[in-house]
Amino acid sequence: MRLLEEKIISEGRVLSDQVLKVDSFLNHQIDPFLMKEIGKEFAARFANEGITKIVTIESSGIAPAVMAGLYLNVPVVFARKRKSLTLTDDLLTASVHSFTKKETNEISISKKYLDEADRVLIIDDFLANGQAALGLVEIVQQSGAMVLGIGIVIEKAFQQGSEKLKERGLRVESLARIASLANGQVQFINENVEELV
Amino acid sequence: MRLLEEKIISEGRVLSDQVLKVDSFLNHQIDPFLMKEIGKEFAARFANEGITKIVTIESSGIAPAVMAGLYLNVPVVFARKRKSLTLTDDLLTASVHSFTKKETNEISISKKYLDEADRVLIIDDFLANGQAALGLVEIVQQSGAMVLGIGIVIEKAFQQGSEKLKERGLRVESLARIASLANGQVQFINENVEELV
Repeated sequence: MRLLEEKIISEGRVLSDQVLKVDSFLNHQIDPFLMKEIGKEFAARFANEGITKIVTIESSGIAPAVMAGLYLNVPVVFARKRKSLTLTDDLLTASVHSFTKKETNEISISKKYLDEADRVLIIDDFLANGQAALGLVEIVQQSGAMVLGIGIVIEKAFQQGSEKLKERGLRVESLARIASLANGQVQFINENVEELV
Repeated sequence: MRLLEEKIISEGRVLSDQVLKVDSFLNHQIDPFLMKEIGKEFAARFANEGITKIVTIESSGIAPAVMAGLYLNVPVVFARKRKSLTLTDDLLTASVHSFTKKETNEISISKKYLDEADRVLIIDDFLANGQAALGLVEIVQQSGAMVLGIGIVIEKAFQQGSEKLKERGLRVESLARIASLANGQVQFINENVEELV
C-alpha cells in the first residue's frame, strides 16, 4: 500500500536491524486519515469472505481494526492483555510472549462476543514473530469460529510470523512488507525505496 | 446524543448503582458505525476551537478519539498506561488512580507529540471520578499546550468528575449523561428513559 510505505519512509525510525518505530502515526500518535485508508484497503482485500467480525488486540490494533469494521460493516472485538475486574464473563484466553517487551501476557476475549457462526478477520498493527497473531487465532478457534484471514499493517517479513501463519493454512494480507532494516534503511518487498521518496 | 442513549438502554448492563457495563459496543466489542457518529458529534461540538490535536488514553478511548480526529482532521495521541521498552523518548507523565480497577497507573505521552502550540481536545470513554481526565489535563499542561475541552462518551453525572473539571475552567461535553443507575435502571439527565425504548 503505497500511502503507508511513503509514511514509513518519511516518518519511521529504524532503531536497529530488528526494530522500526512508527510512533508518529500508528503506535502512539495516530493518523486518522491513514487509518481510514488502511481500513478501506483491508475491507477491499477481504470483501468476498463473508466476514462477520473483526478481532484485534489492544492498543495499537484498535484504530486500523475499527476503520476496517466500518467499511466491512461488522463489529470489532479487541483482546485485552490483562483481566479487568469488571469483566466477569467467561473468557477465551491464550498466552502471548512479546520479544520486544520481553514479557508474556495472557490475552483474553469474552465468550459472549465470538461463537461458531462467526467468520473472523484478525487485524494487528505489526507482524514479527507472529506470537500475537497466533494467540488471537487460538482464541478465535477456541470459540468455534472460523479465521478467514489475517490483516497486518506492517509485516517484518525477515522474521518468521507470516510463515508460521501460512503453514496453518491461514491467509495473511500485509499492507507493507519490510524485507530488511539493515544499515538504518527500510527496504520493502516488491518495492523500490528510491521510487517512493 | 440519542443514538448513544438508545444503545445504552438496549445493550448496557447495570451491574450496581455505580457500574454500567457497555462491553458490547464500547469497552470490549466496538460498534464502528456508532464510533463514527460519536466522532462526528465531538467534531461538531468543538468545531470552532481551532483544535490541533486530540489526546486520549488506551484502550477504550482510542476508537472514539480516532473518529473525532478524522472529522476534525487532526492527529490523535493516546497516553499509555505503562512504559514501553521501545519508548525511549522523554515522557510527560501523571499518576491516575482507577477506583473501578483498584489500582494506580502511571500514564505517559512522549514529549515529541505535544507542544505549546497545540490546542488540545481530550477524549475518553467514561467520566466518573475524573481521575483519568485530570491526569490527561496534567500531561497536556506539562507540555505547555492548551486544553480547549474534554469530550466524554458516557458521563456518570452522579459522580464528581465533571464538577472537578469545570472547577478548573474546563469545558466538558458528554454525549450521554447518566443521572442514576439505581434499581438497575439507567436514568439520563435531560432525557426521559420511557421516550427512548
